[in-house]
Amino acid sequence: MDRVIRRTGWDKDSTTDNGNRFLTANGYMGIRGTLPEYGRNELAAINLAGLYHKVGNGWRESLNAPNPLYVLHRVDGVACTPGVMPYASHEQALDITRGLHTRSTVFDLCVLRDERFCSMDNPHLLCLRSELTGIRGAADTDARTDSDIWEIYGPHYNHVESGADKGVIWVLAQTDTGQQVAVARRGTLAEDAESRVYTCCAAIYTSLDCQNPLAAAIRALDDADYDILRRAHTAAWAALWQCAEVSIDGDPFAEEALNYSLYHLLSIAPRHAASLSVPARGLSGQTYKGAVFWDTEMFMLDFYLAVQPQAARACVRYRIDTLQGALDKAAEYGYRGAFYAWESQEGGFDACSDYNVTDVFTGRPVRTYFRDRQYHITAAVVYGLMKYTRWTKDMSLLLDGGYEVLAQSARFYLSLLWQKPGSRTYQILGAVGPDEYHEKVDNNAYTNEMARWTLLTAAEVLAEMKGSHPAAYAALEQKIGFERELPLYKRASARLKEKKPGKDGLIEQFDGYFALEDVSVDTVRGRLMDPREYWGGANGVAAHTRVIKQADVIAMLYMLRGRYAGKTTRANYDYYEPRTEHGSSLSACMYALAACMMERPDAAYPLFMKSAAADLAGGGKQWAGLVYIGGTHPAAAGGAYMTFLYGFLGLEIRQGLPVLHPRLPEGWKSASCKIQLGGFEYTLKAKADGSRTAIKAPL
Amino acid sequence: MDRVIRRTGWDKDSTTDNGNRFLTANGYMGIRGTLPEYGRNELAAINLAGLYHKVGNGWRESLNAPNPLYVLHRVDGVACTPGVMPYASHEQALDITRGLHTRSTVFDLCVLRDERFCSMDNPHLLCLRSELTGIRGAADTDARTDSDIWEIYGPHYNHVESGADKGVIWVLAQTDTGQQVAVARRGTLAEDAESRVYTCCAAIYTSLDCQNPLAAAIRALDDADYDILRRAHTAAWAALWQCAEVSIDGDPFAEEALNYSLYHLLSIAPRHAASLSVPARGLSGQTYKGAVFWDTEMFMLDFYLAVQPQAARACVRYRIDTLQGALDKAAEYGYRGAFYAWESQEGGFDACSDYNVTDVFTGRPVRTYFRDRQYHITAAVVYGLMKYTRWTKDMSLLLDGGYEVLAQSARFYLSLLWQKPGSRTYQILGAVGPDEYHEKVDNNAYTNEMARWTLLTAAEVLAEMKGSHPAAYAALEQKIGFERELPLYKRASARLKEKKPGKDGLIEQFDGYFALEDVSVDTVRGRLMDPREYWGGANGVAAHTRVIKQADVIAMLYMLRGRYAGKTTRANYDYYEPRTEHGSSLSACMYALAACMMERPDAAYPLFMKSAAADLAGGGKQWAGLVYIGGTHPAAAGGAYMTFLYGFLGLEIRQGLPVLHPRLPEGWKSASCKIQLGGFEYTLKAKADGSRTAIKAPL
Repeated sequence: MDRVIRRTGWDKDSTTDNGNRFLTANGYMGIRGTLPEYGRNELAAINLAGLYHKVGNGWRESLNAPNPLYVLHRVDGVACTPGVMPYASHEQALDITRGLHTRSTVFDLCVLRDERFCSMDNPHLLCLRSELTGIRGAADTDARTDSDIWEIYGPHYNHVESGADKGVIWVLAQTDTGQQVAVARRGTLAEDAESRVYTCCAAIYTSLDCQNPLAAAIRALDDADYDILRRAHTAAWAALWQCAEVSIDGDPFAEEALNYSLYHLLSIAPRHAASLSVPARGLSGQTYKGAVFWDTEMFMLDFYLAVQPQAARACVRYRIDTLQGALDKAAEYGYRGAFYAWESQEGGFDACSDYNVTDVFTGRPVRTYFRDRQYHITAAVVYGLMKYTRWTKDMSLLLDGGYEVLAQSARFYLSLLWQKPGSRTYQILGAVGPDEYHEKVDNNAYTNEMARWTLLTAAEVLAEMKGSHPAAYAALEQKIGFERELPLYKRASARLKEKKPGKDGLIEQFDGYFALEDVSVDTVRGRLMDPREYWGGANGVAAHTRVIKQADVIAMLYMLRGRYAGKTTRANYDYYEPRTEHGSSLSACMYALAACMMERPDAAYPLFMKSAAADLAGGGKQWAGLVYIGGTHPAAAGGAYMTFLYGFLGLEIRQGLPVLHPRLPEGWKSASCKIQLGGFEYTLKAKADGSRTAIKAPL
Repeated sequence: MDRVIRRTGWDKDSTTDNGNRFLTANGYMGIRGTLPEYGRNELAAINLAGLYHKVGNGWRESLNAPNPLYVLHRVDGVACTPGVMPYASHEQALDITRGLHTRSTVFDLCVLRDERFCSMDNPHLLCLRSELTGIRGAADTDARTDSDIWEIYGPHYNHVESGADKGVIWVLAQTDTGQQVAVARRGTLAEDAESRVYTCCAAIYTSLDCQNPLAAAIRALDDADYDILRRAHTAAWAALWQCAEVSIDGDPFAEEALNYSLYHLLSIAPRHAASLSVPARGLSGQTYKGAVFWDTEMFMLDFYLAVQPQAARACVRYRIDTLQGALDKAAEYGYRGAFYAWESQEGGFDACSDYNVTDVFTGRPVRTYFRDRQYHITAAVVYGLMKYTRWTKDMSLLLDGGYEVLAQSARFYLSLLWQKPGSRTYQILGAVGPDEYHEKVDNNAYTNEMARWTLLTAAEVLAEMKGSHPAAYAALEQKIGFERELPLYKRASARLKEKKPGKDGLIEQFDGYFALEDVSVDTVRGRLMDPREYWGGANGVAAHTRVIKQADVIAMLYMLRGRYAGKTTRANYDYYEPRTEHGSSLSACMYALAACMMERPDAAYPLFMKSAAADLAGGGKQWAGLVYIGGTHPAAAGGAYMTFLYGFLGLEIRQGLPVLHPRLPEGWKSASCKIQLGGFEYTLKAKADGSRTAIKAPL
């Protein structure tokens, strides 16, 4: 495999999209795909995983590091950058096979080529080589660590020191809450009359890593050599691709888009950490506060389970380790058990603001209910935990906190329930479902069914635990006293109101949904007076119509597949799909998966491609009200993979073995990939004629 | 008594205020206090009681009649109206003793005096005399029935016919739903070189009155004579004032303001009807759709009970007769029993729109929850019914439908309740209390306590009924089967969540209120970007603060006085009053009443005056979003009366007899009024020295 994504030519308005498109990352950090001479105005950033800080009344968000790879050449005093110095050609490229970002610009006065990578071998390292040749004039080079960085709610560093130590230039940036980000670099400039070659190796350590991150960063550059580091880096990528690559014979664009999606998932996988999850916009910046959403459990975990099980483990482990945050949040709202964070930062702190959208007409913050009412997040966490456990057969996470998560999650749903006096039916009131455009709705089908599933799963798994791990069971009972609640889980799951399919097979998304105005997505869009308007909230254009943001009933039908008849899926797909804005990158892939369940791969295909190419194509919704929501879309990438694996290949695990039920889209001759399962690596392949193979090999 | 309200001088911007200030009405119709030469642009209107119609997507609203009293004089072709013809002086006046509207303008080319009244003797009649004298030039007079009328959501008449019949000019206006409004007039013009006197008697009948309203209107003018009708009219007013007048020795402005308020209440009292209530803006126009709100039960009924018991009976009867509308509304929302209309039109139809406010920035309708969630309206209806019954000892309304209202109201509250599985506490979720700025709140103290009061009252009164009226009881049981619910009423009233006073005596207005932003009313006002902005709703400036629109906890403390300790009233008054915008005319008088309960008449006084002078002073809030809400404020008038009677005089009824506990404001030497009670008329008088008398006389 040798895949390179290229964009030729330059225009200013593509800078943001390219920053996402050409991202290089290694789970520890993400370097936005901006040119090396770019700074805060072009949204250049090195985004750090798992480190958060809040300034004043701004939102608490992830930190960006000072940028040690900044370099700007000038010839005759003119900056060598498109838009300033005239140029004949310009190309920016990303070699996804090797994880290399490159640029090549033929300026009037010189030729500039650079290469940059974020080491997949050592998560703290990042390197750049910048070659200026054919210089016609007097050249100079400004290479430095750029501390004047892009931040959405900054500045986060109230103290920045810098210095030099044996050829290493360092910057130590500190927040007012004691977080430290140390950035060291070792740069060399080789020059003659017609050329200059600047080479830089840099290291980043933070106070999350060790006591003295500055010393660690400096030490990491001992003997640092660009070429040696590059070899280790590309070898690491090769090892990743060995298992991760997918092949689609007959559809090169789909193959490129899907592998490009997997590039992103591999780039941001938390391989270096035992307990860390993936932010909703990956490591492409501070959008959504760098926080972890249900996106991980819903759409990324499947890929990691299949090809990066250690990363999957770190993600699930993160939820177990943040249980206390979920317990605290539940208590804050008067519930019991675990109410997981909608926007999870370290410790499970919910960074979601009560005012998460800004009104475009007044500039005022708008009260939203993502944080308070997306009760379904807890079910997603349990779903992820069980997905991990069932795929890997690894009981260690259940035993090391996972059982407790189960019990506290069921307890949470128990505490959510309401009933009418004298009625046996339990209800969940005032929820926000996956379709966030409709707030505080009663008996959202998705929420109710996922709550029921959680209650049942907890009841079953904890009952098994009593037999299989009696000592752990007794210890857990001692700790949180859940046993007397087990019958309540079952009772609640039996009594919880079900939004049953009607005669026509339709499931009402929530109580009263079918009474809302029935207009098309285009009609609702036509009512926008400002393209940045938020569609939901109390008064958004979609709020009082049947137009929904993303898969909701369909998400439920997919998540709980097997519980519903095929005709129910078909009826609801045909009803809800035309009413879905797909305003979330989580939407298209859900519909694609549902279409495959209905044996309609060709209906799934455009939705699959929309997901797979989300970041490759760029564009997409950049605003919710006046809040910037741009960045990469790893959930869409993961959803595309799921559509490929479960949808088109039709993978099911039966008795621990992979079984395919292929339904390839028109034009696909064959499709194949590898997965790790039960201690083996399987090469899965399906052909257009329906034949399929699963070849087993030792890991 | 001889009281005249005068305004001298003219400016265009006062036209709307004067239209309210100088209103003349007789319960059947209200003639806005505009000049006789005014038309739709100056909001001239003859508003009709109890007749409603809807056009297209507009709001269903009360009808205005064509105006038979229109008259415009011209001299040398120049219209005799301020702003067109130069003038030396201009006065508009209202003789509230006699119910006469007059104007007097000394123009450069003539002197114009006119007098107009809305007959208090015959509710169908209205008369005008217009005298032009000192004419210097060639005069002509345009007297006609103006059918080009002011309507908010019109035009309502799709067919207008006119004709003449034996000196009577008639207009018959019809709606597309068959309503007819017939307007007949008989006008005479007497003229000489220097003067012209136009005299007009007119009659209005509608299809609510009889089969052939046109014939009735024409017949009503047989032998109509201005002076004779005027004598009958002023005699009727004199009879009304004989009982209604209040005296305040030592405070002539308060005396004037309060009597002026009573003038309005007398003007709009539904004396002519057996079953009709009073719209929230009286008969001053189509504001609030001409609909009946809880204003009647809360603030007007007390005055009518004291001096116009037949009008009180008509108002209560109206609620009994509109029970079916309340049953239908409850069913519409999935409740049982009677959920009364928030904006009640004929038959109890709830005219309240789901979108009752317009966003000033976008012009879009805003979803509000007045209609769906103001559960407390049903309690207000029961409260009014019981107030009537307890004051008059007249059981006939209970027997003729009132008991059924009680049972259906308790049933409604029963059906509202929620509980947590395993908890004995019942809760009312998602309510809108009197303070409409906070929507969909849980356990609003006012709502819960009024619901509890309704449940308890229904349980007690229906239990009494079994003994006192066994046949009626059996018939009602046969009809609606309520008996098995009686124990549930009691249980629910015992279990319903109480917002108990804290250690500091404070009662939280609803769950979570004390967690809201605590800022001043002025701070919140300062956040307005447009003065017409609605403060409430999901995103209004007050919605997420502790600033409230109107008395809420204080309303509860007043309504259920006797249940709470004096220190509780004081603590909550001191807390909530500074946080109250008094954005409703229902607010100030509640606080005034509470201040009197606390023996602080001087704190009550400015709030009393604000209520009493609401329409005299004019101004006030004219807009909620882009919706016009101007008009007269009979609830404020009634609230002022209540403050006078129950607050300052301190009236209580003990064993059927009036007992005073005077607490007169500073400067009042004495205060007196008459009330009808138990078949007698009592002249009540309190003096500053604390002495008081109640002199009994036969009715």
